[in-house]
Amino acid sequence: MSSIADELTSALGPGKVVQDPAVLAAYAVDQAPVLDYQQPLAVVFAESVPDVQAAVRSCAARRVPIVARGAGTGVSGGAHATEGSVVLSLERMNRILDLNPDDETAVVEPGVVNADLNDAAARHGLMFAPDPASFTISTIGGNVATNAGGLRCAKYGVTRDSVLALDVVLADGSLIHTGHQTFKGVAGYDLTGLFVGSEGTLGIVVGATVRLKYLPREVHTIAAFYPDFRQAAAGVLAVGKARVQPAIMELLDGGSLVQLDEIHGSDLAGRGASLLLVQTDGFGAAAEADVVRDVLAAGGAVVTTEASEEAEHLVDMRRNSRGVEVDDQYRVGEDVAVPRSRLVDYVAALESLAETHEVRLKVVAHAGDGNLHPTFWVDRVNDLADAEAAARLNKALDASIAVALDMGGTITGEHGIGQYKLRWLSLEQPEPIRELQRRLKELFDPAGILNPGKAI
Amino acid sequence: MSSIADELTSALGPGKVVQDPAVLAAYAVDQAPVLDYQQPLAVVFAESVPDVQAAVRSCAARRVPIVARGAGTGVSGGAHATEGSVVLSLERMNRILDLNPDDETAVVEPGVVNADLNDAAARHGLMFAPDPASFTISTIGGNVATNAGGLRCAKYGVTRDSVLALDVVLADGSLIHTGHQTFKGVAGYDLTGLFVGSEGTLGIVVGATVRLKYLPREVHTIAAFYPDFRQAAAGVLAVGKARVQPAIMELLDGGSLVQLDEIHGSDLAGRGASLLLVQTDGFGAAAEADVVRDVLAAGGAVVTTEASEEAEHLVDMRRNSRGVEVDDQYRVGEDVAVPRSRLVDYVAALESLAETHEVRLKVVAHAGDGNLHPTFWVDRVNDLADAEAAARLNKALDASIAVALDMGGTITGEHGIGQYKLRWLSLEQPEPIRELQRRLKELFDPAGILNPGKAI
Ligand SMILES: Cc1cc2nc3c(=O)[nH]c(=O)nc-3n(C[C@H](O)[C@H](O)[C@H](O)COP(=O)(O)OP(=O)(O)OC[C@H]3O[C@@H](n4cnc5c(N)ncnc54)[C@H](O)[C@@H]3O)c2cc1C
Ligand SMILES: Cc1cc2nc3c(=O)[nH]c(=O)nc-3n(C[C@H](O)[C@H](O)[C@H](O)COP(=O)(O)OP(=O)(O)OC[C@H]3O[C@@H](n4cnc5c(N)ncnc54)[C@H](O)[C@@H]3O)c2cc1C
Repeated sequence: MSSIADELTSALGPGKVVQDPAVLAAYAVDQAPVLDYQQPLAVVFAESVPDVQAAVRSCAARRVPIVARGAGTGVSGGAHATEGSVVLSLERMNRILDLNPDDETAVVEPGVVNADLNDAAARHGLMFAPDPASFTISTIGGNVATNAGGLRCAKYGVTRDSVLALDVVLADGSLIHTGHQTFKGVAGYDLTGLFVGSEGTLGIVVGATVRLKYLPREVHTIAAFYPDFRQAAAGVLAVGKARVQPAIMELLDGGSLVQLDEIHGSDLAGRGASLLLVQTDGFGAAAEADVVRDVLAAGGAVVTTEASEEAEHLVDMRRNSRGVEVDDQYRVGEDVAVPRSRLVDYVAALESLAETHEVRLKVVAHAGDGNLHPTFWVDRVNDLADAEAAARLNKALDASIAVALDMGGTITGEHGIGQYKLRWLSLEQPEPIRELQRRLKELFDPAGILNPGKAI
Repeated sequence: MSSIADELTSALGPGKVVQDPAVLAAYAVDQAPVLDYQQPLAVVFAESVPDVQAAVRSCAARRVPIVARGAGTGVSGGAHATEGSVVLSLERMNRILDLNPDDETAVVEPGVVNADLNDAAARHGLMFAPDPASFTISTIGGNVATNAGGLRCAKYGVTRDSVLALDVVLADGSLIHTGHQTFKGVAGYDLTGLFVGSEGTLGIVVGATVRLKYLPREVHTIAAFYPDFRQAAAGVLAVGKARVQPAIMELLDGGSLVQLDEIHGSDLAGRGASLLLVQTDGFGAAAEADVVRDVLAAGGAVVTTEASEEAEHLVDMRRNSRGVEVDDQYRVGEDVAVPRSRLVDYVAALESLAETHEVRLKVVAHAGDGNLHPTFWVDRVNDLADAEAAARLNKALDASIAVALDMGGTITGEHGIGQYKLRWLSLEQPEPIRELQRRLKELFDPAGILNPGKAI
């Protein structure tokens, strides 16, 4: 019998199916910790919808698992290869097929990079609102499949809110079109919403019609330095109580400031133990910024009064704050969200957890949404100490999740369950909900070939 | 064997199961045209989640269809009783269980009236954004089940965008909780979104956790009168091109103005053949209103320059423009949506259709979303002429739907398919999509007792 790679090659034609070990290794994992490293059998670089259909059909015939992949920037292991799988890269399907400035919509292939769509939209005074910090590299297909959030989603919504319609290749290789080209539409069930955030387990997204929003003409950015982290978190609530809706509210703790200083040679840590970055936009940006400045100063912040250029630079630094770090068993970035009123409590709990378990901690948060990314890590010394440190790290992680859930939170605000967060899913979702999802999965993918072992 | 009504009474206790003919008649239909009048076997007035569970279990045991009902303001027949069914009214479950101004969320029973939640939220400077024109009477459960839109959803989103979590009684009487209490959350599939807009066919919504948005402090309203309808529709696009996002953009044609004049004794029709009402809100409201006024005046409108009080009054009149009309076979209100760029073409097509088929026409539109509500009607004369007129009406309806679909539109922007719009659904959705939905329905409701014959 021919190998699956041979069969894929004969089905798709030359240059699209790769088995070079370096490529297999590069496409075996995303940016999440690796629990069970598996090299894929092949990587397929689809160039068209029929390519995707042919690949799915070939894999379906042999029950070979297919792992869809955008840019591989996921941090939950959603794009990790699993045993005996084929990785299906959508990166070559990167054309913006239509951008209609009057309809305020765009139709894109899944491999279009978020920043490329935003550049194209900006020429018309429009933007694709979801802006994960990975926006310069992550793909629209990946954003859709994870329901990505970002910095400005407190005001502009998450990916779900910008997706009108999808083209999806199902587990049997058939192609469907869900949703509507109009801003609103309620005919039948929300299939589009079901595929958004399904992490490649229900179908392969091969096209998306997205709604674009208006690029704000005016932007004001405020940097507020605080003597401690909890006070900064309280600042987030104070802005809310003033009933001002900023586009961006990013919270950084002392550890994050130290890290930015190391990367950029700045001296942020010298200016405070925590930083709250607030950006207002639109026609009311200046008036909103005035209110925000007053409110934050009243809460103990040292607020930039100068023009917002420096603060904007800080937002850019924040967008890149993850740097080149990739998580592993000694460093894990989390993605919990808590109800807004619990932000201060949660931040306090994180600090005390890090102390109890003797692990290092830094936190950045999309604070307007109550979505926090604590990173726990341990310094490596030698094998023996490392194993013990990794165990402490895991205790801290588990505890941070438990506290978030206790406060009415979720284990994942935007990164998805992927493979890595499965261990906590049953703490958040009781069995009947999990069972319902298993049955949905079975309905869409009875043979279980689409990204098995992920998301649910 | 005892009757289903007896069984329900013994399961739920006294005072909750009604068979009084007047009540049966009142709860047999919503506000849509009636294709197949059916009197329900009984009306159940549930007062608690266990009541709903007991009712569903009793009906399930006998395979009696259950039609969930909020306020019965639906205009697609979603709440019409079907043969041998029990109507399950949620109107007594009308408590706001929690309203947390710091979390900016509320937890409500399904029978809470939209306006009551908004009143409660307003006391904290908050609002429940979805505002169907029926907001003073329709329920949150009904809004959720239809994914209701409204006037301000171009800026603030439809009901889906404000729902974080749901409590749902499934077809077997079990209770599940979907979603998350946080603004963001991506654990597993979007079950919440699947129930939103499912018109009571997948489960009974017995509780909702909703996100509240900030009540804007400043509101500017602009009334722009135009010499013809198409020019007014072009005004909508012009505002978009100026990249201003109003909260409200309502478009009314001449027929609607005449009707408002008849109800209110005003003289709107004397001021123009079409009216575009634009409301900007928030900190930038005044600046946005200035841009809007300039843009509309440049497009040929006579724009109110005075304070916006009069225009606000017009928005209130618009909210009530449906008046006490209930659709029947001689008068049908439609709910199409088209891509924004096609608004002018579509409005022109409607006018010519009305002429061709010799039917009367008036149109109001949530124009910012491209969502139009044309109402076609015929004057009644005598039985013979009426039958012929009803046939013309149906031709006009069918043609208006076909044209909307041709332009890339949908047959329902916000009202839902219900029972009445089923006849057009296959024109919008091909068989594979319909089949997928049937299978979803079967997964959730294998015996088919939840609002059969609706929505899909
Ligand atoms: C520096 C950095 C910053 C980040 N910041 C954010 C942030 O602010 N907000 C946020 O939400 N995330 C963030 N992320 C996580 C990640 O970038 C997002 O999840 C992003 O949406 C993934 O896109 P991708 O193209 O890289 O997808 P991948 O990582 O390749 O895939 C992600 C998941 O989607 C599936 N998938 C990908 N494409 C398709 C498709 N076409 N059809 C079906 N399934 C598909 C994969 O199987 C996998 O399960 C960040 C990551 C990094 C490294
Ligand atoms: C004057 C007027 C103006 C309107 N304006 C708008 C508008 O601007 N935008 C808009 O979107 N709609 C509008 N509508 C339509 C209607 O008001 C909405 O669809 C509304 O959401 C229905 O709410 P309801 O409580 O009356 O639900 P009902 O009419 O009782 O039910 C509607 C559907 O939802 C189901 N349902 C109700 N409650 C539940 C529940 N708890 N669980 C499960 N299923 C349930 C029913 O079975 C039915 O299928 C208008 C109607 C009128 C009469």
